[in-house]
Amino acid sequence: MEQVAVETRILKKNDDYARENRERFAQQNLAVVNFLSAPGAGKTTVLERTLRDLSTRIRTAVIEGDLYTTLDRDRIAAVGVPAYQITTGTCCHLDAKMIAKALAEFPLNGIELLCIENVGNLVCPAEFDLGEQLRVMVYSVVEGADKPRKYPLMFHQAHAVLLNKMDLLPYSGVSLQELRENVLAVSPDTVILPVSCRTGEGWPAWTEWFTAAIARVRSGAPACV
Amino acid sequence: MEQVAVETRILKKNDDYARENRERFAQQNLAVVNFLSAPGAGKTTVLERTLRDLSTRIRTAVIEGDLYTTLDRDRIAAVGVPAYQITTGTCCHLDAKMIAKALAEFPLNGIELLCIENVGNLVCPAEFDLGEQLRVMVYSVVEGADKPRKYPLMFHQAHAVLLNKMDLLPYSGVSLQELRENVLAVSPDTVILPVSCRTGEGWPAWTEWFTAAIARVRSGAPACV
Repeated sequence: MEQVAVETRILKKNDDYARENRERFAQQNLAVVNFLSAPGAGKTTVLERTLRDLSTRIRTAVIEGDLYTTLDRDRIAAVGVPAYQITTGTCCHLDAKMIAKALAEFPLNGIELLCIENVGNLVCPAEFDLGEQLRVMVYSVVEGADKPRKYPLMFHQAHAVLLNKMDLLPYSGVSLQELRENVLAVSPDTVILPVSCRTGEGWPAWTEWFTAAIARVRSGAPACV
Repeated sequence: MEQVAVETRILKKNDDYARENRERFAQQNLAVVNFLSAPGAGKTTVLERTLRDLSTRIRTAVIEGDLYTTLDRDRIAAVGVPAYQITTGTCCHLDAKMIAKALAEFPLNGIELLCIENVGNLVCPAEFDLGEQLRVMVYSVVEGADKPRKYPLMFHQAHAVLLNKMDLLPYSGVSLQELRENVLAVSPDTVILPVSCRTGEGWPAWTEWFTAAIARVRSGAPACV
């Protein structure tokens, strides 16, 4: 029971920090997006390609979450976008206090879009609100069709689910229709966008949706229409 | 600081339960294997195929860990192997107390091998000893070559790393050599076994290693030679 009580207290405290972050983001007219996925689903590659497309038009910064390394920050910095690394040690998710601490050290003056790449994990990151207005989940289609049913909270909370690595689908034995049905079963309003970072499949639809969603949240409207 | 102190207490308590589990397993001359991976790397499929090969020779039972569903237990039961489902709710890993509780309800008389499939997660399951003698990690090669450096504890603790979905490697752009080097950089003594559940590539080497490791731990020897 101790564990449950402590978890409740930790989540309550997190919500307080998240509220402060959210107010700060609104004051700065900043769109903030939390990118979530399992390890190896392609979050960083999606971000690299997205930033190459958008960062000339939308002033962008990135906060990277990882247990130990700065590999992902270095990849984002190579695209020419300012990037800040949070290393969580053994902690399996980012939390709102880590973001608040990063904001104190990472100047966001003039920035319009802040992308946060969470730790690769389909469980706990779904429970920790960071104060973001948008949650985008990256899911590798080769992970199988059943995962939305096994990790429903993560899918349920996502405004958009990118079904990534579509170029591998024909070799994977995974049914796209079954996967779609399972996503919609746990999250009927989620926007599903099949993409491939390697071939560019689905990319215009993703950047169009993302650009419109950024404009919506910066105008104070809900993330989804 | 509260979080760190509580985590330390929780891990200490877990180690006490794990010790009791380990003593019980030794008394029953039971080989116990913890299967770990990210979501969608293929743990259940590896187990299905492994059990089809081994369960006629080695009396086997399976404990399945999942947040909510019994999908994996049903798949194992369909192979004809007794299976018990632990649903963890929002908890992102199995712990030794959950296993102790399962053992009270799941009779293992005459069983020689107990396979435990952990929750799909590369972080916390590495920290929670269940009392097992063997840890086998299943890694999908399409997750990329860099993950051993990003999730070093999980790789470091594995006696064997199955590089699964080798049939997708030619389409993935992932370098097997770089992946191997990164596994060995964080875990020099780990046995690396490239396999494909779909094509059977590498399967004889895996079942040979696994059968020998089961015999070693049942004789009281260390898991690895």
